[in-house]
Amino acid sequence: MKILVIGASGTVGQGIVQELERDHQIIRVGKTRGDFQVDLTQEESVKALFAQTGKVDAVISAAGGVHFGPLAEMSCEQFNRGLQDKLMGQVRLVLTGKDFVNPGGSFTLTSGILAQQPIRTGVNASTVNAALEGFVLAAATELNGLRINAVSPTVLTEALPDYGPFFSGFESAPASRVALAYRRSVDGVDNGKIYRVW
Amino acid sequence: MKILVIGASGTVGQGIVQELERDHQIIRVGKTRGDFQVDLTQEESVKALFAQTGKVDAVISAAGGVHFGPLAEMSCEQFNRGLQDKLMGQVRLVLTGKDFVNPGGSFTLTSGILAQQPIRTGVNASTVNAALEGFVLAAATELNGLRINAVSPTVLTEALPDYGPFFSGFESAPASRVALAYRRSVDGVDNGKIYRVW
Ligand SMILES: NC(=O)c1ccc[n+]([C@@H]2O[C@H](COP(=O)([O-])OP(=O)(O)OC[C@H]3O[C@@H](n4cnc5c(N)ncnc54)[C@H](OP(=O)(O)O)[C@@H]3O)[C@@H](O)[C@H]2O)c1
Ligand SMILES: NC(=O)c1ccc[n+]([C@@H]2O[C@H](COP(=O)([O-])OP(=O)(O)OC[C@H]3O[C@@H](n4cnc5c(N)ncnc54)[C@H](OP(=O)(O)O)[C@@H]3O)[C@@H](O)[C@H]2O)c1
Repeated sequence: MKILVIGASGTVGQGIVQELERDHQIIRVGKTRGDFQVDLTQEESVKALFAQTGKVDAVISAAGGVHFGPLAEMSCEQFNRGLQDKLMGQVRLVLTGKDFVNPGGSFTLTSGILAQQPIRTGVNASTVNAALEGFVLAAATELNGLRINAVSPTVLTEALPDYGPFFSGFESAPASRVALAYRRSVDGVDNGKIYRVW
Repeated sequence: MKILVIGASGTVGQGIVQELERDHQIIRVGKTRGDFQVDLTQEESVKALFAQTGKVDAVISAAGGVHFGPLAEMSCEQFNRGLQDKLMGQVRLVLTGKDFVNPGGSFTLTSGILAQQPIRTGVNASTVNAALEGFVLAAATELNGLRINAVSPTVLTEALPDYGPFFSGFESAPASRVALAYRRSVDGVDNGKIYRVW
């Protein structure tokens, strides 16, 4: 299959590419790196990406930023930034990209453990991840022959140097293990499923 | 208790007011009706509301619009409208209102059954409702002495003339039954709970 991986250079994305490139054709996409560049927060940029790549068999997103900070100090503007980036970015990828995925193809988005397991300063992330899971559940019923799933990773073992203190006591998962869930979504039959790797 | 009910004139809100006014002091708020007016999508309007009401013991929100329409035709702009209205509106109410709720007080927001049970044309609603549930779960850990819960109603019996065809086969619940969940949130001890009235 011809598979678009958005966020291919990231901690999660690198694991996905390593897992899938063994038997699939991977198109690496990033904001600044990769075979193609895209900014998921910009409609025209997403359209331009698909105009360049043409039709694909699967689209994987492992991108999206949220706002971390104490609720006591969080502004609506900061909160909305996470909605516009990780949530609307991935929604935009589906709304715009659905006409460029071959019949039987799939979308696999990325949510995260914070949807169900909050951490201090993570209220924006919990909201965005939960939203993505609601989106996948509902979009799965209206994508006409395409499938859509999401992977919800715990903190990655490779990310512990950066995020470890925020996830004190959480079990991490190596990128290679998280990547299996993306493979299952792409190669399997599931639709509207959330793969919780935790 | 002095309780602010946003959306007091609505189908859900009327039931809440009827249930709670028997033993609480209710301040009715709407966009165009009620004791005070507010537009939850506007920061200044929310600030002005609390400047007028002063401190309260509980804030209930039964307001918020989402976009209904087929996923195939949905634009990012339409999708974002639901995020800005029902989701950011209620988040704004909490971020802005938290300093105006007395110690031990509570917020009760409104999500809805579509978070877990999608209907045709409801992908924006599923996303927004799921997001609100993630928000409540996480905000509950950071509100310093305040509580926050959400009520997730099925379609209201009183709303069947309008929404019935979209909820074919769903069991409805009368506003009076849904209102009990808001009472439980206000009078009880729960924090971070989603009351599913379905
Ligand atoms: N790391 C974890 O432990 C963990 C755990 C659970 C969930 N997640 C989620 O997984 C996703 C990826 O996280 P990560 O840690 O792998 O991130 P990361 O290492 O920071 O990598 C981010 C990737 O996304 C790309 N990117 C950034 N902004 C973009 C935009 N506006 N449009 C398109 N692509 C963009 C980057 O491209 P360039 O490199 O080309 O700039 C890069 O490839 C996030 O949604 C995160 O919340 C991560
Ligand atoms: N009805 C159902 O069956 C049902 C089921 C599940 C969930 N829900 C959810 O429950 C909530 C209320 O639904 P409903 O059917 O009761 O709505 P509704 O009958 O249309 O009433 C809406 C209420 O919200 C107020 N309002 C509208 N826009 C506002 C804004 N920007 N800022 C502040 N207040 C605003 C209105 O005020 P004015 O009258 O003063 O203009 C009115 O009091 C919604 O979030 C809906 O998704 C409803």
